[in-house]
Amino acid sequence: MLQHRWRQWVHVTKLDPAREHQPGLIEEIATSGTDALMLSGTLGVTRQNMGELLKQVAGYDLPVVIEPASPEVAAFDGRLLLFVPSVLNARDVGWVVGKHVEWVKGQTVHWERVVPEAYIVLNPESSVASVTKADCTLGPREVAAYTRCAERYFRFPIVYIEYSGTYGDPAMVRAAREAIEEAQLFYGGGINSAERAAEMANLADTIVVGNAVYESGAEVLRETVRAVQ
Amino acid sequence: MLQHRWRQWVHVTKLDPAREHQPGLIEEIATSGTDALMLSGTLGVTRQNMGELLKQVAGYDLPVVIEPASPEVAAFDGRLLLFVPSVLNARDVGWVVGKHVEWVKGQTVHWERVVPEAYIVLNPESSVASVTKADCTLGPREVAAYTRCAERYFRFPIVYIEYSGTYGDPAMVRAAREAIEEAQLFYGGGINSAERAAEMANLADTIVVGNAVYESGAEVLRETVRAVQ
Repeated sequence: MLQHRWRQWVHVTKLDPAREHQPGLIEEIATSGTDALMLSGTLGVTRQNMGELLKQVAGYDLPVVIEPASPEVAAFDGRLLLFVPSVLNARDVGWVVGKHVEWVKGQTVHWERVVPEAYIVLNPESSVASVTKADCTLGPREVAAYTRCAERYFRFPIVYIEYSGTYGDPAMVRAAREAIEEAQLFYGGGINSAERAAEMANLADTIVVGNAVYESGAEVLRETVRAVQ
Repeated sequence: MLQHRWRQWVHVTKLDPAREHQPGLIEEIATSGTDALMLSGTLGVTRQNMGELLKQVAGYDLPVVIEPASPEVAAFDGRLLLFVPSVLNARDVGWVVGKHVEWVKGQTVHWERVVPEAYIVLNPESSVASVTKADCTLGPREVAAYTRCAERYFRFPIVYIEYSGTYGDPAMVRAAREAIEEAQLFYGGGINSAERAAEMANLADTIVVGNAVYESGAEVLRETVRAVQ
């Protein structure tokens, strides 16, 4: 079952449907050793560009998941997993629960393919922090408390520490690590070297590499893969 | 295990620690045939008045649960269950997730005694709607969508349709009933007669009688108990 295999992922590559992807880059990414591709973006993602990126990544023997930022993008059928985020430290309640209600109201949801993710967004300069009005002033104690709420109160299978666009504070990821019991801990943000990949993979179960692919190409991706294997 | 027995409750009586309770009334309530006492209130509940009410209800052979509206009240130890609400249609995000983080940050939580509740608050005139800034303009489709999100996305074991202070629209409770799969459906609000108790018990798994006890005394409570047995 695809649904359970994601727990073994150590290295995930996040691709943004709003960007252009040369076929050669897709090929290099798909053969880099990364465990899965996550198609995700905060701004400018549409059904159309998501559909196009899906076509580009089809045909590789690599799991693909969609992480929708809006109900429209969550509508893709097929055998794809949907990693559906809730930003627990959003001040705009619609990103905690709201868009989810619109999504569920508007279409049949195949729940067996849905993996809920509890995001804790920590880079105040990021698009996701700005759009969700995230409270990024949290310290390690708050991150630990959000993590426990995510896991024990809301029963999220994934807690995702998101520094989108910058490299995060390992103390925050460590706080989540120490608080977590059974959920899978994801870390994303600023991983663009073997050292950073190794440092965060030592704390999180799964690291997510995103921008580095666009900024430095597939060689950096292969380095980060080697660093966590 | 107390933790699981609550799934058999059909009739629950809600007592407000901010009110005065004559010992005779407590005695009548405890012997009315109600399945459990829930100690709960939105305004004016303190550690002190909660502690006093707890002492008053102790010694009866009846399950007692605390439903805290603030982290302070959630601190009671002992073998009590805590039914901890999240108001999913609150516009003030702290009532969805926020107070929960404060609670978890400030004390050791005995998770085996915590039962998370997804509230959908529908009476705009109620204190709880006002305090949480609940969006009470929902129709049956929205109630169904919130219910599915509560159960399938957030994994709440209880969905609670709350009309606090007034009798609700059975169409809303029916919408939740039809959407729900495994969660327990609670209904509360305006149950002050056998007819209303029977109507809502026909849709919900558990009905909650509150104000009627203060307004009309224990005889009405016994009527509502008989109506659902």
